[in-house]
Amino acid sequence: MSKDKSFSRSEKDGLYKAIFSRRDVRSHFISKQIPDETLAKILNAAHHAPSVGFSQPWNFILIKDHETRQKVKQSFMKERKKSILMLDNDKSKQKKYKSLKLEGIMESPINICVTYDPTRFGPFVLGRTSISETGVYSVCCAIQNLWLAARVEGIGIGWVSILTNEALHKILSIPDHVRPVAYLCLGYASKFEAKPDLENAGWLQRIGLGDVISYEKWGVCKTHSWAQFCDCVKDIR
Amino acid sequence: MSKDKSFSRSEKDGLYKAIFSRRDVRSHFISKQIPDETLAKILNAAHHAPSVGFSQPWNFILIKDHETRQKVKQSFMKERKKSILMLDNDKSKQKKYKSLKLEGIMESPINICVTYDPTRFGPFVLGRTSISETGVYSVCCAIQNLWLAARVEGIGIGWVSILTNEALHKILSIPDHVRPVAYLCLGYASKFEAKPDLENAGWLQRIGLGDVISYEKWGVCKTHSWAQFCDCVKDIR
Repeated sequence: MSKDKSFSRSEKDGLYKAIFSRRDVRSHFISKQIPDETLAKILNAAHHAPSVGFSQPWNFILIKDHETRQKVKQSFMKERKKSILMLDNDKSKQKKYKSLKLEGIMESPINICVTYDPTRFGPFVLGRTSISETGVYSVCCAIQNLWLAARVEGIGIGWVSILTNEALHKILSIPDHVRPVAYLCLGYASKFEAKPDLENAGWLQRIGLGDVISYEKWGVCKTHSWAQFCDCVKDIR
Repeated sequence: MSKDKSFSRSEKDGLYKAIFSRRDVRSHFISKQIPDETLAKILNAAHHAPSVGFSQPWNFILIKDHETRQKVKQSFMKERKKSILMLDNDKSKQKKYKSLKLEGIMESPINICVTYDPTRFGPFVLGRTSISETGVYSVCCAIQNLWLAARVEGIGIGWVSILTNEALHKILSIPDHVRPVAYLCLGYASKFEAKPDLENAGWLQRIGLGDVISYEKWGVCKTHSWAQFCDCVKDIR
């Protein structure tokens, strides 16, 4: 690794390649075990995320146990059913939903529950005094670091959000004051799709970059001082 | 960029280098303008974050206007004062807090407000039906992508959380249903500190990696099947 503070062309490319080829992986898990050093390395990447007031409010529960994962899978099955019922008035979307593979809880070798502890270094957390949600935002930044580091190692991560926090609290003995933020399934992947599964399946399309940017105020699509930049982003997807 | 799905040594190093050398930058901004192509590139990196149900619920308000930034700075000043009052019973911490540089709103060439729109592609968002907060978690992943991409370009980002969402709503004409998530200050930096400012200032220390990991359940520090891994992480910081 170049010790210099600036990045070589190939180092830069590595970051962008990780960002653009990272996927939510629910299929293609292979049985190859993740070496301890690699798992430690990607967890350390997560641990070096930014955190409000340097509060580092995250915890990582590593799960291999078959029975524990079965219980989590049951919560997924229950919540999936509820989702399907919600689509009762849109049969075409309901059918598509049913056809999608949405988790790899049992197929992946490791599951990780990432949690947020609002009491860490508290009650006064620098920078969290005006907007209390910034604490959990830090945990999400750690998750994204973990996801990108896994990607460069060839490890896929799938985030299972179709389950309840109540179930996770109970199954994993998480204290009441701690909030589960993500339930992740990790494993080496035989394949990373070129596009997100939901884009491939025609569920939704990627929005144009220009459509999520505004200038100086909400919803303003062009101003004098940003005119050239507007042109620069208008065709990017 | 190697078209291969696997990462070269140097591409891998680039990702880890970005993660470990990323800082919350409040000082060291230089006046050099950010080229349109570079700004578009790092925003596109943000736009390629994972999002629940591929909902892409983020918006980016780009701000150069001096008057707008002055108003945001006023909100910061007000909230900073409140924070200082909260430390009235800990004079040593209060003194330290007062000495810290916590934002670069006026010194940085560009500010970006990142927001969360829960109505995007709604009301049914796949994967958000059981845990509604997952929508805003996606926005945080986008912010971390932006932060890392900025880092490889030599651009520092400082996240200002000492202000109110009410002020941001008003100053930037953000609709009621949209939530401001982050107010970021961006600019080329003459320097990236080796450690976080708050660690350098002795505000808090980095926790050992082993202390934020547990096994199979909350708070379990060792199990038979994880014994070797426990040893592997115990000295990592």
